[in-house]
Amino acid sequence: MSKVHNFSAGPCILPQEVLKQASEAVINFNNLNLSLLEISHRSKDFIEVMENARNLVRELLNVPDNYEVLFLQGGASLGFLTAAYNFMKIDGSAAYLNTGTWANKALKEAKLLGGVLEVASSKDKNYNYIPKNYQIPGNADYLHITTNNTIFGTQLKKTPISRIPIIADMSSDIFSKKINVSDYDLIYAGAQKNMGPAGTTLYIVKKSALGKTGRTIPSMLDLEVHISKDSMFNTPPVYPIYVSMLTLQWLKNNGGVEWIEGINQQKADLLYNEIDNNPLFKGTAEVDSRSNMNATFVLTNDDLKDEFDSMWQAANISGIKGHRDVGGYRASMYNALPLESVQALVDVMKELAKKHS
Amino acid sequence: MSKVHNFSAGPCILPQEVLKQASEAVINFNNLNLSLLEISHRSKDFIEVMENARNLVRELLNVPDNYEVLFLQGGASLGFLTAAYNFMKIDGSAAYLNTGTWANKALKEAKLLGGVLEVASSKDKNYNYIPKNYQIPGNADYLHITTNNTIFGTQLKKTPISRIPIIADMSSDIFSKKINVSDYDLIYAGAQKNMGPAGTTLYIVKKSALGKTGRTIPSMLDLEVHISKDSMFNTPPVYPIYVSMLTLQWLKNNGGVEWIEGINQQKADLLYNEIDNNPLFKGTAEVDSRSNMNATFVLTNDDLKDEFDSMWQAANISGIKGHRDVGGYRASMYNALPLESVQALVDVMKELAKKHS
Ligand SMILES: Cc1ncc(COP(=O)(O)O)c(C=O)c1O
Ligand SMILES: Cc1ncc(COP(=O)(O)O)c(C=O)c1O
Ligand SMILES: [Mg+2]
Ligand SMILES: [Mg+2]
Ligand SMILES: [Mg+2]
Ligand SMILES: [Mg+2]
Repeated sequence: MSKVHNFSAGPCILPQEVLKQASEAVINFNNLNLSLLEISHRSKDFIEVMENARNLVRELLNVPDNYEVLFLQGGASLGFLTAAYNFMKIDGSAAYLNTGTWANKALKEAKLLGGVLEVASSKDKNYNYIPKNYQIPGNADYLHITTNNTIFGTQLKKTPISRIPIIADMSSDIFSKKINVSDYDLIYAGAQKNMGPAGTTLYIVKKSALGKTGRTIPSMLDLEVHISKDSMFNTPPVYPIYVSMLTLQWLKNNGGVEWIEGINQQKADLLYNEIDNNPLFKGTAEVDSRSNMNATFVLTNDDLKDEFDSMWQAANISGIKGHRDVGGYRASMYNALPLESVQALVDVMKELAKKHS
Repeated sequence: MSKVHNFSAGPCILPQEVLKQASEAVINFNNLNLSLLEISHRSKDFIEVMENARNLVRELLNVPDNYEVLFLQGGASLGFLTAAYNFMKIDGSAAYLNTGTWANKALKEAKLLGGVLEVASSKDKNYNYIPKNYQIPGNADYLHITTNNTIFGTQLKKTPISRIPIIADMSSDIFSKKINVSDYDLIYAGAQKNMGPAGTTLYIVKKSALGKTGRTIPSMLDLEVHISKDSMFNTPPVYPIYVSMLTLQWLKNNGGVEWIEGINQQKADLLYNEIDNNPLFKGTAEVDSRSNMNATFVLTNDDLKDEFDSMWQAANISGIKGHRDVGGYRASMYNALPLESVQALVDVMKELAKKHS
């Protein structure tokens, strides 16, 4: 059986060579004759993994020296709370751009700590576009954005122009394209899309922006605590961090973010062209808000559903069922998904059209 | 090179057969032709892992039906905060038994939410004993205990008699011996000792005890939220949960907690007998407070340090350097450590004594 074309929305496809090395490390890590799972996180071998992972993030994203890089636990969902705790002042407020389910959940956690203003929302059209031309209150402590909306297949094409600090949940598009880290005071992202397996969360934070809220922050939510312990305040999620390190190494070895951005553009162009030109399909997101990571689309004729579903399954394609909030299909094209997988999907779409032309 | 005798304090030794299966799943899980790391956590294959893991906990510990079992993220360190959030009432208070570093850290997080009373402390003797005969305030919301003190090598031999609910951090002795779950309103434990690799935290909670604090709890810290989503409120740490499931399966297949409790007693007896009878060594914990998981001991003559250190290293023993807060040596004898590894250590200790008799 040949390799599955894995369009899963996350956790998702990882490079084969990463998986091979990751599998070996479970038996014998660094020729220690011990599994990576059974060594101390304070051992020099694991500290090296952690430092490597942090440095790869720095290199790949050109992280400025005044930013810190952390690998923590809790997923982006704990990030929603951590972001607000570290940046919303006592008696302060925050501004949120509501572009979907995850943006909403981020906003909900922030409300526990202070006033939250929704600067704009695309809820009116089931989040199929990124709002434009909204006002950002100059007195809020930060603006929170979700750069890629995994469920709805929309993506911010540029960073908002803002006089207040920007915090970005980049869970589903980090490392997929170049970013300018200094546009943000805080970036956070669950690993399980472009970076690695589920179980660790990346934080990139401007150090000088911390410690200004007047709050006592619980230790595990306090980014300054984690920084002071080099991302090892408590036992880190060893294996997810290791596999993330391997994936970042893979990205670097192949040409880095610039290289993958080009490939991701090719994949997205290939699929969106087919969606647009094929009369049996249409996209659900507005064209100028379309995500290069998650393409959402529907059949123009629902009667073809069973036929299409058996065709892509026969072609060894997996994971393209749409999220229940949108329906239809969602093809997630994260970094490790090869162009040939997108081609396989496009071939099936063409085949369906041919049969019904 | 033969297998290392791995006395690491955590993350720590896991069963060889678990590691073998865990390694295979990284390449091809359940014959899906996909890695476990790259499938959706909402897939039927992973939901089965999660349910299996939760059910194994129920079986192995005889968890009563009115308790819920969760596999979350954040380590026991986030558990310190989660425990307080879910059990300390607004304007309430809590009682903490201070038996060491981890107990202290738990207490510190609880202080952010309300009044905390330290019911007793063994700090006066660098935590080398478990306090007895202390008063538990009848009006506190709960008593918090740390059943095994990983750093200091002490262990509670019985659950305190308490009129108020008990919350227990069992990170370093869960699954090592029989417990009576209904003695506790909440048990939590980081996986990385007897249960699996780092990256997931087990919670066993009496459902009817929740929702009584009057607090609005942040979603990721709210045990009722996690229960309502069957431990999948957000993306779970897939791989750590899977390896924990395999380890619990291994325990069950071999005879369960009763079986391992006997073996753990043999291992502890073997080592403590040697510590007591060998004139070159002495234990640091008081005899009636000694841990069956972590045995802490020192040389009676420090001049022998280099000699002893090279002898155990030559015997392929690893991980027995003591924690900096105690010094000397710490031999952690978690479930997966075979009796023969303890014998190997005892042989080296005997050998040293012979040379110097
Ligand atoms: C954009 C975005 N933010 C946040 C999350 C939540 O992440 P986690 O499940 O790691 O908490 C997701 C999950 O898919 C996501 O896509
Ligand atoms: C008894 C005990 N409690 C809590 C912790 C902290 O656990 P974590 O590192 O998972 O946060 C440890 C870590 O070794 C421990 O031994
Ligand atoms: Mg979304
Ligand atoms: Mg079309
Ligand atoms: Mg301790
Ligand atoms: Mg002695």
